[in-house]
Amino acid sequence: MSRLRAALDPRSIAIIGASENPNKVGGRPVHYLDKFGFKGKIFPINPSRPEVQGHKCYASLADLPEAPEMTIVAVAGDNAIGAVEDCAARGVKVAVVMASGFGEVDAVAGKAKERHMVEVAHKAGMRIVGPNSQGLANFGTGAIASFSTMFMDMDRAEGHVAMLSQSGALSTVPVGFLRQKGIGVRHTHATGNDADITVGELAIAVAEDPEVKLLLLYLESIPEKKYLEELAAIALDRDLPIIALKSGRSEAGRQAAQSHTGALANEDRVVDAFFEHHGIWRAPDMRGLVEATELYLKGWKPKGRRLVAISNSGAVCVMTADAATAVGMPMAKLAPETDRKLKGILPSFATTTNPIDLTAALLSNSRLFGDILPVIAQDPAADAFIIGVPVAGPGYDVEAFARDAAAFGKQTGKPLVVAATQKSVADQFAAEGTTVFPTEVEAVSALHQFLAHRELMTRTRERRAARGKAGALLDLSGATTMLNEADSLALLAARGINVVPHRLCHSRAEAVAAFEAIGGPVVVKGCSADIAHKSELGLVKLGVKTREEAGDIYTQMEDIIRKHGSRFDGVIVAAMVGGRREIMIGAHRDPVFGPVVAVGDGGKYVEVFRDTALLLPPFTATDVREALNRLRIAPLFAGVRGEPPMDVDALIDSIVRIGDLMRDPEAKVMSLDLNPVMLDSAGKGCVVVDAVVFRSA
Amino acid sequence: MSRLRAALDPRSIAIIGASENPNKVGGRPVHYLDKFGFKGKIFPINPSRPEVQGHKCYASLADLPEAPEMTIVAVAGDNAIGAVEDCAARGVKVAVVMASGFGEVDAVAGKAKERHMVEVAHKAGMRIVGPNSQGLANFGTGAIASFSTMFMDMDRAEGHVAMLSQSGALSTVPVGFLRQKGIGVRHTHATGNDADITVGELAIAVAEDPEVKLLLLYLESIPEKKYLEELAAIALDRDLPIIALKSGRSEAGRQAAQSHTGALANEDRVVDAFFEHHGIWRAPDMRGLVEATELYLKGWKPKGRRLVAISNSGAVCVMTADAATAVGMPMAKLAPETDRKLKGILPSFATTTNPIDLTAALLSNSRLFGDILPVIAQDPAADAFIIGVPVAGPGYDVEAFARDAAAFGKQTGKPLVVAATQKSVADQFAAEGTTVFPTEVEAVSALHQFLAHRELMTRTRERRAARGKAGALLDLSGATTMLNEADSLALLAARGINVVPHRLCHSRAEAVAAFEAIGGPVVVKGCSADIAHKSELGLVKLGVKTREEAGDIYTQMEDIIRKHGSRFDGVIVAAMVGGRREIMIGAHRDPVFGPVVAVGDGGKYVEVFRDTALLLPPFTATDVREALNRLRIAPLFAGVRGEPPMDVDALIDSIVRIGDLMRDPEAKVMSLDLNPVMLDSAGKGCVVVDAVVFRSA
Repeated sequence: MSRLRAALDPRSIAIIGASENPNKVGGRPVHYLDKFGFKGKIFPINPSRPEVQGHKCYASLADLPEAPEMTIVAVAGDNAIGAVEDCAARGVKVAVVMASGFGEVDAVAGKAKERHMVEVAHKAGMRIVGPNSQGLANFGTGAIASFSTMFMDMDRAEGHVAMLSQSGALSTVPVGFLRQKGIGVRHTHATGNDADITVGELAIAVAEDPEVKLLLLYLESIPEKKYLEELAAIALDRDLPIIALKSGRSEAGRQAAQSHTGALANEDRVVDAFFEHHGIWRAPDMRGLVEATELYLKGWKPKGRRLVAISNSGAVCVMTADAATAVGMPMAKLAPETDRKLKGILPSFATTTNPIDLTAALLSNSRLFGDILPVIAQDPAADAFIIGVPVAGPGYDVEAFARDAAAFGKQTGKPLVVAATQKSVADQFAAEGTTVFPTEVEAVSALHQFLAHRELMTRTRERRAARGKAGALLDLSGATTMLNEADSLALLAARGINVVPHRLCHSRAEAVAAFEAIGGPVVVKGCSADIAHKSELGLVKLGVKTREEAGDIYTQMEDIIRKHGSRFDGVIVAAMVGGRREIMIGAHRDPVFGPVVAVGDGGKYVEVFRDTALLLPPFTATDVREALNRLRIAPLFAGVRGEPPMDVDALIDSIVRIGDLMRDPEAKVMSLDLNPVMLDSAGKGCVVVDAVVFRSA
Repeated sequence: MSRLRAALDPRSIAIIGASENPNKVGGRPVHYLDKFGFKGKIFPINPSRPEVQGHKCYASLADLPEAPEMTIVAVAGDNAIGAVEDCAARGVKVAVVMASGFGEVDAVAGKAKERHMVEVAHKAGMRIVGPNSQGLANFGTGAIASFSTMFMDMDRAEGHVAMLSQSGALSTVPVGFLRQKGIGVRHTHATGNDADITVGELAIAVAEDPEVKLLLLYLESIPEKKYLEELAAIALDRDLPIIALKSGRSEAGRQAAQSHTGALANEDRVVDAFFEHHGIWRAPDMRGLVEATELYLKGWKPKGRRLVAISNSGAVCVMTADAATAVGMPMAKLAPETDRKLKGILPSFATTTNPIDLTAALLSNSRLFGDILPVIAQDPAADAFIIGVPVAGPGYDVEAFARDAAAFGKQTGKPLVVAATQKSVADQFAAEGTTVFPTEVEAVSALHQFLAHRELMTRTRERRAARGKAGALLDLSGATTMLNEADSLALLAARGINVVPHRLCHSRAEAVAAFEAIGGPVVVKGCSADIAHKSELGLVKLGVKTREEAGDIYTQMEDIIRKHGSRFDGVIVAAMVGGRREIMIGAHRDPVFGPVVAVGDGGKYVEVFRDTALLLPPFTATDVREALNRLRIAPLFAGVRGEPPMDVDALIDSIVRIGDLMRDPEAKVMSLDLNPVMLDSAGKGCVVVDAVVFRSA
């Protein structure tokens, strides 16, 4: 925790605007520092009081016996600016500015005040959290520099979870959920306007705290990716899972975010791709952020995601299978040996296939549970377990079930969760240390998230080992130029990407010769770096069958382009390429996230159907295959209705090359649009038929 | 409640196998009858006791002073069969058979025993619930003929919800959830194996109880639709909403259901269509079954589903907009007048557009809430409201907010929900009678379900008024015959459906004449009632351009068909029909649900992409439009990329006619497959180009 140590583990804290009243903004941090056992020095500052909450109070920063490492600026409005200036002058390392009314309410004057504070701070080597920050809270060190009211009814109970957010409410609500489940939290930080230290930079410092086992983030906008990338790399290196809730998924949500904070809107699908690229799990909502927390803290090293379900209710068995299918978890196919052994233990009317229905036989034989679990544990297909006990009143030995389940979990080391609605039942399983959810839907969903996230982290680590990190961002501020089609195709061909056989012709004779060389029928296209939409001007002729026709079209197209007042770069004569499916490959540079490659179903309705997947370079063939498998057209690749498979390997190769092209700063490609790329049967390759490339000038 | 009155409101109940111990199956009902205040006569039957739980006990049914209206058969295994025989002989009206080990464990011998019991009963005019039934519980009358352990820790608290299920666990788990929320339940019935009275028939009787305001169903399989149809009709007539959880959505789930109970698997998409057709809301899981219950009990008459969100947290505003978009609720666009008024009340840094962010200004002015609500209430665009209060500790006047919100709700009569995570906050809103959810996701989801379900009920009532009820099922057991293409097209044309201009020719000369009449180019197709896949035999020629060619092809095709050993029905000469999109219309008869019409994107990959919507006849143009709007290709209908709109009205007209055809028992159509149906631009119609019809022989 070397970085920003003074923010997370200060040796001394001064509170500017300290109050005797723990229900005031300036009183709460003093109260919390005492309550949560802060071991460093506490310096309340308030010119009108000799003492605050039992601590000697000082009239000003200047009066302090030493420069505090951290100050909490709890005075309001413009007084906060003066306080920050004082802090910088006094040699403070970090100032947490709680005052609001800056950039979040006035994008001009408010932002200017923020810039002023940061300038003053940086000149003196000081850092600022906020303004408009609810504050930082490190329950590991007791450094609670926060005015959140929520810690009032929280006991001291350190855990291994860190929660970071700009928003105050969203830093505390997830913590409230976790506390209700009895899960301890180590860090809860709300950074506010992020004028200097951003939530991302602070998260890096938090990720370096070895006691943190799970890091949760709430983000409303991602103005830059630098810190998040570094955070993700550090987290992967030390196997720390990160779950992020990024709101503004919808257009309505982005509008709301913009009118509240003026935040830059991120393109949501790119956000998805960015998190995935970095092994960060994106939670769909608040529940998704916290629901699986316990599973992350178990230390499980899962091998797969095949589920075994066991219940005393047939209905719960059915609903568990439904829930598993809905999230994409396969039900494990148990070995014949397992079935044979289970048949020897269970009564004839129980079900020995997975999901395993113990029926009410559990009522008459409480040992059934303990007897079958070791049998199932040995099955190689069983990766994870869910035990559903929807009802168990008097007559059921729930205590024994809970003991057996816990023992089983310890023995196998494999993920195990319980779904129990009745509080009395849930409590007994929880008392033995087993994670319990109210229904099978939540249980399966949390289990799946945990398993899929571990897989994502492994895949991300493998990719990083194979492909390294993303390159630096290109400067997007300059002008861009469109390459003509011939230059576009040449640029791709130079990168080893298969493009349509063609010749750029500069005379009628060359066009005729090209026809002869390529062999008809051919496609003839006018070529101009000024014309993006050739078809509309009649500059594309398909199925040209004779040399004369090719020659005539050359003349016509030259005429059209010159009359249009555009540069005439020649005429392309190209082979007519067949294939089975029109694919599109596109790429652009996101202003925040950099190069983005899109691949999907091609044709004229690309924008309408958007059956595309996004990838951030660098990526591997495995990443591309995964992305292609998510497309709606994915079944076609393997061949349907008796058709042979398509040449997906060739497509993947081209896409990986496009990724590398976009990652190469020398290539200066700003965007490209390859549509169609004709994909043929396996062994017959894929060919870029049409291409438009934009480069930075 | 005339129907099955003795099952729901018996005047006397005998318990065969009554036990002194309330923790035994035969003791629990006696205990419950007392506990829940059953007013009728209680007759415990047990030869070895003079008294059971304070009631005089009888040695046998024969010894009773009168024939009980209901008996609870709490003896095990084959003893239950004898008991049922005794009941029938004694003149009992309904026997609730709790014993298990019948059809659910042995599909042959077990089912035979069930049939025997039902036969004996019916001969004597008696009805049976079960066997393998957990029992019936009517908290309105105190007739608790159930051995569920869950009622042990339930107080007497009648409500207006009814829960019916075959499964015991799934009849009580939802009730447990509702009780945790303080929602009373009137009926909880678990019917078991449904050998006689099915869960559907019992639900009809329950729906006739005027105190029931919401009816919940858990179904694992739907063996026949009769009772559910009647139930839905009764419920619509008295405006009673029904929510059904039908498990076995997934293949894995259906397999589990089948191995547990041997239940017939329903095709899940048809189940969706059936529920929708009848105005029944299908819950995706247990949560969805119960989550919105409170909203249904409020008596709201919603007018639309445009949402207004208000919060003291900007982050919650953003996430609420995301959640609304995710479920398909538009954010209301407030009037300029509303904005103007809100600006006069709220501080400058609050947001006056929807979602409305009050910011922490609520801390300094507790009246903000009460001041802005009446302004928003007057906005005509506001259909429903959500108030998000993620955090509110000391300093917030939550009591005032709760009072203001409740008053607002009463004043407008419009749906209003609160999202509050903190228990102290939630409790205060709940105490004022407002429905509270832990997060905005649950709140929005419940609100949306309620509003969409009310819309569905209205639409269903309108359709029933316009189109009447579904016809009776056809007997599917007989043979079916395929019509040749000419007959298929003729059958469609006779129903007013636009088919491709064509002639069935029986000689080369007729083919040539047809070419002349229709005008080239034409399509020539061999016609045989024995050949479904014409293309594979070379029996389809497109783009035939001359009369001679048409004549030659006639001869070739006759030759192919005769050599194939198939009936030669002639050769079709048809116009080449253009159009903008290939659509498919299909129809079949589901063994349980009857006629099903499918409509969607056509072409060769129909089965791969399954971009289809299902409709159950009779349906209206509105229903079809709604179904078409759900297709992935829906944007194309309106026109994209500058294209004109397509002739959706013509398509809808054809689909409605197909629905009527399938509904008409005289037509005897078993299935049909129209692919492609060429859909053209608005005003240019849609044309069935290829058709295969199967009829019952």
